[in-house]
Amino acid sequence: MSTALKTESDRIPVPALACGPRVVRVALAGCGTVGGELVRMLHHGAAETRARHGLRFRLMRVLVAHGDRPRPDELDRALLTTDLDAFLAADADVVVEAIGGIEPALAIARATLTRGKRLVTANKALVAAHGPELAALARRHGGRLDFESAVAGGIPVVRTLRESLSLTGIQSVRGILNGTTNYVLSRLEDGWTFADALADAQARGFAEADPSRDLSGEDAADKLRILAWLAFGTEPARLDVRRRGLRDGADRLARGARALGGAARLVAEAVRVPEGVVASVEPVLVAAGGDLGRTRDEENLVIVESAWNGRVRLAGPGAGGGPTASALLGDMVHAARRHRAPAHAAAPPVPDRRAHAWAVAVDRGASAEEALRATLDRVEVEVDRIARGEGVSVMRTVPTPWARIGLAIRALEVQGLSPAVLRVDPAA
Amino acid sequence: MSTALKTESDRIPVPALACGPRVVRVALAGCGTVGGELVRMLHHGAAETRARHGLRFRLMRVLVAHGDRPRPDELDRALLTTDLDAFLAADADVVVEAIGGIEPALAIARATLTRGKRLVTANKALVAAHGPELAALARRHGGRLDFESAVAGGIPVVRTLRESLSLTGIQSVRGILNGTTNYVLSRLEDGWTFADALADAQARGFAEADPSRDLSGEDAADKLRILAWLAFGTEPARLDVRRRGLRDGADRLARGARALGGAARLVAEAVRVPEGVVASVEPVLVAAGGDLGRTRDEENLVIVESAWNGRVRLAGPGAGGGPTASALLGDMVHAARRHRAPAHAAAPPVPDRRAHAWAVAVDRGASAEEALRATLDRVEVEVDRIARGEGVSVMRTVPTPWARIGLAIRALEVQGLSPAVLRVDPAA
Repeated sequence: MSTALKTESDRIPVPALACGPRVVRVALAGCGTVGGELVRMLHHGAAETRARHGLRFRLMRVLVAHGDRPRPDELDRALLTTDLDAFLAADADVVVEAIGGIEPALAIARATLTRGKRLVTANKALVAAHGPELAALARRHGGRLDFESAVAGGIPVVRTLRESLSLTGIQSVRGILNGTTNYVLSRLEDGWTFADALADAQARGFAEADPSRDLSGEDAADKLRILAWLAFGTEPARLDVRRRGLRDGADRLARGARALGGAARLVAEAVRVPEGVVASVEPVLVAAGGDLGRTRDEENLVIVESAWNGRVRLAGPGAGGGPTASALLGDMVHAARRHRAPAHAAAPPVPDRRAHAWAVAVDRGASAEEALRATLDRVEVEVDRIARGEGVSVMRTVPTPWARIGLAIRALEVQGLSPAVLRVDPAA
Repeated sequence: MSTALKTESDRIPVPALACGPRVVRVALAGCGTVGGELVRMLHHGAAETRARHGLRFRLMRVLVAHGDRPRPDELDRALLTTDLDAFLAADADVVVEAIGGIEPALAIARATLTRGKRLVTANKALVAAHGPELAALARRHGGRLDFESAVAGGIPVVRTLRESLSLTGIQSVRGILNGTTNYVLSRLEDGWTFADALADAQARGFAEADPSRDLSGEDAADKLRILAWLAFGTEPARLDVRRRGLRDGADRLARGARALGGAARLVAEAVRVPEGVVASVEPVLVAAGGDLGRTRDEENLVIVESAWNGRVRLAGPGAGGGPTASALLGDMVHAARRHRAPAHAAAPPVPDRRAHAWAVAVDRGASAEEALRATLDRVEVEVDRIARGEGVSVMRTVPTPWARIGLAIRALEVQGLSPAVLRVDPAA
């Protein structure tokens, strides 16, 4: 093994290039968990980046909100700026946005793409709200938009939908897209309380200080809008996502699922139906030993079903600095080439007429059970079986469209019962 | 929903392009199961290809070995030729090779890439033996080489390793890469005989008429060579793959695994060790409920572990006309853009010094068990536990390097015992 070829990162050597590496000038917006990790990866992976891809990423400017926070040792402090205009004036080929939120991320994205440069972003809220506009800007000005890290961090699902599976006749995309809620549900399975589970997720850094977008399902819905755009061409901001999160009754969701012999997961799903695409983020009762049930803690899972290619599953770390920064770096390599930005179609909301079985859980007790039974009777939802366990009574229905179950939930809420509702996965 | 945008394939509409589609001229070598499916996909997916990617694939010439075989209705018979020179003279931008085997595939590949054109191939044997030479030709002449369909058909593992995960510090790539042997092992679990299981795999079209390359592990080894090239830069033809297939004693492998409470899988694995890369294709005892154990029938699974990105799993259909043709089509779309061909390093063989537990099964009986025990004693392999079941005695060892187990196997074979040997997965 030739030591002359040895890379500084002590990886498997690859041969030196005949010509020198191509320099790609990079401006980075955001230097927190993700941006900081990217700075470290750029530094320690420089030799491999050169050997594998013939590229050298040169950091030109780093935009931060606070100039006095601790930064990675690998970062040259002279590159830091807190001034947006100074950042936008940096002479960069690729702008990497790792700030999150809509502003100033949107301003950075528009300015970058309008100048025909390449934008790599980890910002799911931005892409879900403005993806098509930004893709159109990239097309019009000859720039490029990449956002692998915006969905399911370490799983290459964006590129897979955008390229590999784009012509396979995709029928559905579903999975577990939020690590915080999945971590909480995994702890509830282990018998923890909701409050303890959430506090632990925050202590481990999966959940934000304000985890409300995770718990409400908004975070997963943003990611689902992006996946549906790539899979079906639907405009992400206009996709109607039926969204029910974990905020209330998460304990009972988990206990109700256990009473039925399965597990509760917050499943995001976009499915092609004859009229268009129906989408939902909601608690689903899944088989404990199946793909969804075995996805535990902060892991993410995406399942794509297509007419020509059958069923493909992609699983891996959904969040965290390393996986997200890895995905940014993959996009930066990819962005050194040319690519068409994805197109989309305006699609009107589509009613979800599909029938699923549902599991409706209420606090245990004869009167609550009686009220639940009477309410389901009144809206003509047939009960398949009843299970009782740890302070919870749960009724599993025969396959019923959501609209009917929604009626029952509202009727129960009027009676002060606040039921916990799981859709039942066919494998459960 | 605007009917003006409706595509002929009744998919979700996407907006018409401002300009017309770019025509990509395609020459197709091979029109059997895979090539025929690609012809059908090109025909029925034309509107979506145009809408999504702004491309129109125009078939210029189709090379077949026999001019008189049945062909898809969608194929214009005037395009057929049995003459290699006439095929190579076709005015094509992309040549798709779906013949298999080394010749004439290699001649087609060299001629295509030498002319600076793009080659898309499903041919694992060709890429495993000549990948770096062909990649160098592509680089030198400004052409391009893509081979997503050569490994694990419908799973986008080639693109994932080549781009998304290429700079994440990959530590290992392992999985189930051969659908035929996995189908046979799944049937053995159900109590079938080896002969019946193999005949069924052939009847269903997973196994070739001559399944010897599947059963010997050569097919999986070819695919592993390709994955190791992409993950580690090792030259595929020079990678030393320890290969033990299913040919003899497959029944006992399955029964021995069951006696130990697990399942047998033919696992392909390439792992980075301090000296380089060690690679193996061999029967492994895995946890029945784990990722490998739950991969049944003709499904494939690839697990990639990396320093920066953790553990990513990709699963899906490993073979079949639809998935393989889907992957070819994905590459054809991708080939409409520019890309660097992957590099590699010459790497000397690396001894596998890692210790694994092993399960050694012999036909049940006091004398065979005695001989097995005495032989393991003689080569100083410690037995962790013994299990007995359905005509089989199986000893599970403490962690031991392969070299020592290999000694024991040869000693047992000299005694006429022909043991069935499984490596034991840590999760089993």
